Amino acid sequence: MRGAVLYAPGDVRFEERDDPRIIKPTDAIISLSATCVCGSDLWPYRGANPITQPTPMGHEYCGIVEEVGSAVTAVKPGQFVIGSFFASDNTCPNCHAGYQSGCQHAEFVGGAQAPVLRVPLADGTLVATSDVPSNDLIPNLLALSDVMGTGWFAAEAANVKPGKTVAVVGDGAVGLLGVLSAKQMGAARIIAMSRHESRQKLAREFGATDIVTERGDEGVARIKELTDGIGADSVMECVGTPESMMQAIRSTRKGGYVSFVGVPHGVELKGEELFYAHIHLHGGPAPVRRFLPELIDLVWKGKINPGKVFDLILPLDRVAEGYRAMDERRAIKTLLRP
Amino acid sequence: MRGAVLYAPGDVRFEERDDPRIIKPTDAIISLSATCVCGSDLWPYRGANPITQPTPMGHEYCGIVEEVGSAVTAVKPGQFVIGSFFASDNTCPNCHAGYQSGCQHAEFVGGAQAPVLRVPLADGTLVATSDVPSNDLIPNLLALSDVMGTGWFAAEAANVKPGKTVAVVGDGAVGLLGVLSAKQMGAARIIAMSRHESRQKLAREFGATDIVTERGDEGVARIKELTDGIGADSVMECVGTPESMMQAIRSTRKGGYVSFVGVPHGVELKGEELFYAHIHLHGGPAPVRRFLPELIDLVWKGKINPGKVFDLILPLDRVAEGYRAMDERRAIKTLLRP
Repeated sequence: MRGAVLYAPGDVRFEERDDPRIIKPTDAIISLSATCVCGSDLWPYRGANPITQPTPMGHEYCGIVEEVGSAVTAVKPGQFVIGSFFASDNTCPNCHAGYQSGCQHAEFVGGAQAPVLRVPLADGTLVATSDVPSNDLIPNLLALSDVMGTGWFAAEAANVKPGKTVAVVGDGAVGLLGVLSAKQMGAARIIAMSRHESRQKLAREFGATDIVTERGDEGVARIKELTDGIGADSVMECVGTPESMMQAIRSTRKGGYVSFVGVPHGVELKGEELFYAHIHLHGGPAPVRRFLPELIDLVWKGKINPGKVFDLILPLDRVAEGYRAMDERRAIKTLLRP
Repeated sequence: MRGAVLYAPGDVRFEERDDPRIIKPTDAIISLSATCVCGSDLWPYRGANPITQPTPMGHEYCGIVEEVGSAVTAVKPGQFVIGSFFASDNTCPNCHAGYQSGCQHAEFVGGAQAPVLRVPLADGTLVATSDVPSNDLIPNLLALSDVMGTGWFAAEAANVKPGKTVAVVGDGAVGLLGVLSAKQMGAARIIAMSRHESRQKLAREFGATDIVTERGDEGVARIKELTDGIGADSVMECVGTPESMMQAIRSTRKGGYVSFVGVPHGVELKGEELFYAHIHLHGGPAPVRRFLPELIDLVWKGKINPGKVFDLILPLDRVAEGYRAMDERRAIKTLLRP
């Protein structure tokens, strides 16, 4: 088969790779209905992470089970499944605590920008839908594999509750789905921080009540203005830079909650500032598996449409174009059809 | 009157100071029944904080109201009161959220190592007991002014719940009262990290079920050993150094809770390590005022005896000796009698 491989910053190639096959009895092989490019794929694409060897890319996936290993009992060939970007056994204490992305046997699921994917720990990782979905549901279901689950975790980790005031730092797909999640969780006021018109529009559609275009100290001042000088109850940091992290922390009220779900790059937090900020801080790789049943249900019933973040749809062999468009911020998120 | 003034590292003098008087109509003047030396007083005493001018010391107090300003209505002369080290109006949004130490009008209450003290914002800061307490209750009530409230906040911020496994980093008075708080909140297992025999003994008396003498990476490994490789559910960081902070974070399970209540000195947290640690982090100056009514009640009914941390009792004029004993770790905490 052919799949996406990153060779160097800016150099994604669509090239021949070995066909995935069952290696362990707990594996499943999935024929992908759709895959996509993640904001986090842009870190190595932009040279912010070292690329030590040609790396098969992609970790978001959904599709039809083709084959399962001898130990797999929870899913079977022919079923439509979605899984997280971290495979998990879903039985260890970390999984039981709801942190499947910190599973004691967690394994990163790489190489999903391809027509076929091997998923380890299939029983603990994959969730099957009740039926094979219609085509129009595919983008919504694909989004659950990472970006929607991550936005949902951002909202949950920021303690979003009915009636609360929420701010979202970052207008990438995760930030936008953080807005959608906050709306779904009943937030009264949702402030999206964005200076891109098309993203502002989608933020409004997802439930944002206010848009703040300022950044850094000015962005913080604007949030304070909008909240009687107090700060927001819940702030989601969906970027991962030192600037966005401090913007989030300083926009939050005393005793408020900050979540961070983008892999931090160069972020160092001063203990003394955190101390006097008096905030709650929680983040990490989203335990998407925890949320899959609930989010599949919401998509299935048409209550949420997270697939709207895909504003560029390309055949898989044009994956390089998909990266370019996201790198240049011409696209929010690229869906790829194998 | 005479009170304690810090001139330079190691140089605490007991000397003549102006008598406190009502400055604002919201002030109260308290005749102190007891005061004490705080672990945080040792930072400047040891030269870790700069001393720019001779500084009246002490911020823990309880005693009899002598006089109140014209706007004070909640307390009156003759009442026995306890207050937090941060004066607060107890009416602003931050106070309503339970973060009185982050009150919009917060004012640090300094100079309490003296016979008489001016307390600003008396209505929002002071809590009166139902009666004037007997002498044997004084140490327990004095402890509520900071150290017990801070230990309680540490336990609450670390999400201590019935049945949970808790670890406490730091065997100072705050850490020991963190143990007491965890016991009171129903923790099943309380691991105190200490290598001092007398402190281990008090930790056991307060409810510690296990003692870990190792520190740093070895301390973390020991906590992991005691928790089936998972880490503790709740960890309280009660020191404020980079080493203790990392020890706390690395001792916590995925999705677990770390609190930090000692003013951080030189602490810098790497975003990426925090991200993959998957912990909840919350800390800051304890909002002691929030806890005073409940803690006074527990002391009054004899359910907790936090005053046991005072293992050295001196007349106020020997305050310098009290600092020395704590600096050299010969005393856990020094109570001073005016």
